Amino acid sequence: MSRVVLQQKVLSENDRIAAHLRERFQQNNVLCVNLISSPGSGKTTLLERTLEVLPHDARVAVLTGDIQTENDAARLKRFGFPVKQITTGGTCHLDARMIERHLEDWKLEDLDILFIENVGNLVCPSSYDLGEAAKVVILSVTEGEDKPLRYPSIFFKSELMVLSKTDLLPYVPFNLEEAEENARRVHPGMEIVRVSCQTRIGLSSWLKWLDGKRNAYLQLKAEPVA
Amino acid sequence: MSRVVLQQKVLSENDRIAAHLRERFQQNNVLCVNLISSPGSGKTTLLERTLEVLPHDARVAVLTGDIQTENDAARLKRFGFPVKQITTGGTCHLDARMIERHLEDWKLEDLDILFIENVGNLVCPSSYDLGEAAKVVILSVTEGEDKPLRYPSIFFKSELMVLSKTDLLPYVPFNLEEAEENARRVHPGMEIVRVSCQTRIGLSSWLKWLDGKRNAYLQLKAEPVA
Repeated sequence: MSRVVLQQKVLSENDRIAAHLRERFQQNNVLCVNLISSPGSGKTTLLERTLEVLPHDARVAVLTGDIQTENDAARLKRFGFPVKQITTGGTCHLDARMIERHLEDWKLEDLDILFIENVGNLVCPSSYDLGEAAKVVILSVTEGEDKPLRYPSIFFKSELMVLSKTDLLPYVPFNLEEAEENARRVHPGMEIVRVSCQTRIGLSSWLKWLDGKRNAYLQLKAEPVA
Repeated sequence: MSRVVLQQKVLSENDRIAAHLRERFQQNNVLCVNLISSPGSGKTTLLERTLEVLPHDARVAVLTGDIQTENDAARLKRFGFPVKQITTGGTCHLDARMIERHLEDWKLEDLDILFIENVGNLVCPSSYDLGEAAKVVILSVTEGEDKPLRYPSIFFKSELMVLSKTDLLPYVPFNLEEAEENARRVHPGMEIVRVSCQTRIGLSSWLKWLDGKRNAYLQLKAEPVA
């Protein structure tokens, strides 16, 4: 079997499991958001800032992927919400089966939002559907405004781009407008928020997006199929 | 054929071509250095700073990998050295066959150093030998000091870690000593240089490493096989 054929087989098997996950999320009114970025762009920090402002009775959980360590789960657990680490042991992305397996002992009906923090990688995670309602790509201002053009797949597939670490703008050669223009060249109409998790400026735009997304998701479900 | 078996087959085919490349580099006294990092850690900028200080008659060339664009080749060509872009068209790493193909119309005997700038990805490139004499991993101080523990394979396989963007240290929560300690936990004795391509502080340490590496490479070759 050629490499390409086998890759297609792996992907279609993944798609089958992802479709089943998506169905289960919909049945249980769980908005699932898949966060993707390079290593160190601030996925975990964005989740920390998010979890710390949520009411204590919010029905939110996190699956956080890493190749080797359990550092992220430790960082996120202190906010009191259910958090589980997925250690991929070398694999450069999360796949739908990993999500399915790690959800086994969680009741989906107890959740409103499930965050998935993918492995730090701007390339491979874009090929693996996890059953999420939306992918979100995070790009930090230290990475350069050309990245949407260079890693187009993930910017095309993500509903939202979070431009992170905006507090560093005075110290790095980064043109915000150009970055946003590049993202929208790849993905016309893409939603974008600018966030600093250090100063918390822009955090409310992210929370507002999340809120709107959850409302739209529930509304979409409520509509009768034409 | 299982996925794992097929991956092993692809890798052993890659290793065969890489071994042949390594032999050709050795026969022609070409030091080949494979630069690997996350997107936006500063591989291209480090190469720019390197090429701009080299004498105009230096026998240096660059192969620069990207998934989609030819931006890097354009940036690097203005220094007058041979530069070729390898566009992978979606693939998340360079492989030995891409290197072999792009070297076809270059004479190796005209070169002393060949830089390979890999695709921005801290995971997959670590599995693909390109025939290089040394891998170099670049970690920018904006990415967090935990990265060597989280992406251990590439830190283990790289001879040198370049800690880049050190000019941003006053503005980011990054502990240099801890980052270096983490790198050496994964790779005892790993060489490390600290570089800012903005202020150029530390650039001489990188150039010194390169020089030492080239001398050691030639000397190693000169030694009779025991």
